[in-house]
Amino acid sequence: MTNTRKRIVSGMRPTGPLHLGHYFGVLVNWVKLQEEFDCFFFVADWHALTSEYADPSRIKDFVPGLVMDWVAAGLDENKCVIYQQSAVKEIAELHLLLSMSTPLGWLERCPTYKEQKQQISQKDLNTYGFLGYPVLMSSDILMYRPEAVPVGQDQLPHLELCREIARRFNHIAGQDFLTEPKDLLTPDAKLPGLDGRKMSKSYGNSIGLGESMETIRPKVMGMLTDENRKRKADPGDPAICNLFPYHKLMTDAETCAEIEAGCRDASWGCVDCKKKLVESMDGFLTPLHDRRRQIENDPERLRAIIESGNAKAREAAVKTMEQVRELIHFNF
Amino acid sequence: MTNTRKRIVSGMRPTGPLHLGHYFGVLVNWVKLQEEFDCFFFVADWHALTSEYADPSRIKDFVPGLVMDWVAAGLDENKCVIYQQSAVKEIAELHLLLSMSTPLGWLERCPTYKEQKQQISQKDLNTYGFLGYPVLMSSDILMYRPEAVPVGQDQLPHLELCREIARRFNHIAGQDFLTEPKDLLTPDAKLPGLDGRKMSKSYGNSIGLGESMETIRPKVMGMLTDENRKRKADPGDPAICNLFPYHKLMTDAETCAEIEAGCRDASWGCVDCKKKLVESMDGFLTPLHDRRRQIENDPERLRAIIESGNAKAREAAVKTMEQVRELIHFNF
Repeated sequence: MTNTRKRIVSGMRPTGPLHLGHYFGVLVNWVKLQEEFDCFFFVADWHALTSEYADPSRIKDFVPGLVMDWVAAGLDENKCVIYQQSAVKEIAELHLLLSMSTPLGWLERCPTYKEQKQQISQKDLNTYGFLGYPVLMSSDILMYRPEAVPVGQDQLPHLELCREIARRFNHIAGQDFLTEPKDLLTPDAKLPGLDGRKMSKSYGNSIGLGESMETIRPKVMGMLTDENRKRKADPGDPAICNLFPYHKLMTDAETCAEIEAGCRDASWGCVDCKKKLVESMDGFLTPLHDRRRQIENDPERLRAIIESGNAKAREAAVKTMEQVRELIHFNF
Repeated sequence: MTNTRKRIVSGMRPTGPLHLGHYFGVLVNWVKLQEEFDCFFFVADWHALTSEYADPSRIKDFVPGLVMDWVAAGLDENKCVIYQQSAVKEIAELHLLLSMSTPLGWLERCPTYKEQKQQISQKDLNTYGFLGYPVLMSSDILMYRPEAVPVGQDQLPHLELCREIARRFNHIAGQDFLTEPKDLLTPDAKLPGLDGRKMSKSYGNSIGLGESMETIRPKVMGMLTDENRKRKADPGDPAICNLFPYHKLMTDAETCAEIEAGCRDASWGCVDCKKKLVESMDGFLTPLHDRRRQIENDPERLRAIIESGNAKAREAAVKTMEQVRELIHFNF
């Protein structure tokens, strides 16, 4: 089979088990994309070092954990390439080459740079590698000469920087070799955390993809709903309820309509609504948990997925680098 | 033969043919060191990109040219490892890893950083790669876990930075794996340019190692001597004469003593002195030119030198990186 599908590249840092926020923010989209595109999905283990350099020991377990979460979510190794960034040494070489022509100002002005330094204040991020994060990300992407990159609105400045880095390389090389990837904007279906803030493990407001219903049930039953609805007899407003976005993503449309109407006319109480959500979540998570258990019990398949993905990613990278070196006359 | 000699690492950028300043400033020392140490000498082609990124096309020819200059100067591939930085991809990987734990402040405060940006004002050096030059240099060095590095006084801050980068890695790794290289201070026998300033091709005051006596002779005959000595009958002062440092390096000690006395009592004239220097230079350069011609006429040997050196350098780098990855738990 010749591959005529358009290529896309995307990655995720292995910094811990994934939760429902990752699933609905990113993975559900990846699972769709693998049907349509030539997808390169990578575990960004070198990237994890930008924040975890002082204690990198945990990354090691998070790498296979992340791949298992992906498979659980529905990524299919026969439909996409799943690989590990650090297994493709050519990325480090391209990173070094692109670093030479990337102006410092582009990196210092990157809007996420200062933002992240402020947000992650408990770690010292005043490092050379952290500043250069967009150069590494550009190498990850440009290496595979993709048509597009699936991104959220907040990552658009990074992608624009990636295109500028490509343009500058192409200008030096005298040839439009590195493609300028388009953005494939991810639909903004992000799931809030249990408390309404952004879902994040560090906020303690998340539901892990691998969590059992035994621990999920009390979390759901304890969720805040519409705070203005003091008694069951009071009508509620699903638009300001934390629970309702969960229903919209995991409960069938008919039931959702019933819940919405029932909340507004006070015929559905919050406890009923939560019980229904536990049920929906169980239905939603069961196939994920089944796939997760299968891959967990089959370490050989897990290894095969990663190794064969790494080999494919390397093969493509080797080809790109041969051309890159040729273009900058580093083909000795 | 087991190699029990202490290891040293040093490199040079391939930015053009070498001149006598390079020979007496660096190479004469390397030629001695290869007798005593396990020497790794590399062509720093990636480093050349820090300043030549906008037009890297010339680096390609300068790489074999540099190796030929080294062989002409007396480096012996059976006594030392001669290799090309960019042939050892592991260096790019180590560079990426070390970049994660290198504070920006260490790089910004590096005394040579601002100096070089000012000196090389015709090129835009406000790049990420240029700022990170000491990280790349540290990777070059630390990769081979050397006992020492031959440096000039002006490079001591870089070496101290390299040691700090090693210490930080070792702290994170919990083991003193990367050695902190000592400095092997190069004796300060630098040769001034024909006009008394630092010898540099861009100043037009240099004598190339490969230059023929036909072009060297008029250069020497036109050199400025002691400006206070207007007539041959005036006594001169070798201490402030441009020529005398050349004699000290290339003319035998007995003749040097004779010249020195003759200049002071005006029995030697400047023209005699220059003619003598042309003679000495001819004697000095003849074996270099012979070796240069041999290697130029033997491209297979040149290729074999570089390829076998690259293979040795890679072998050592692969071993180091296996351990480095193990230590930071990147041994998947």
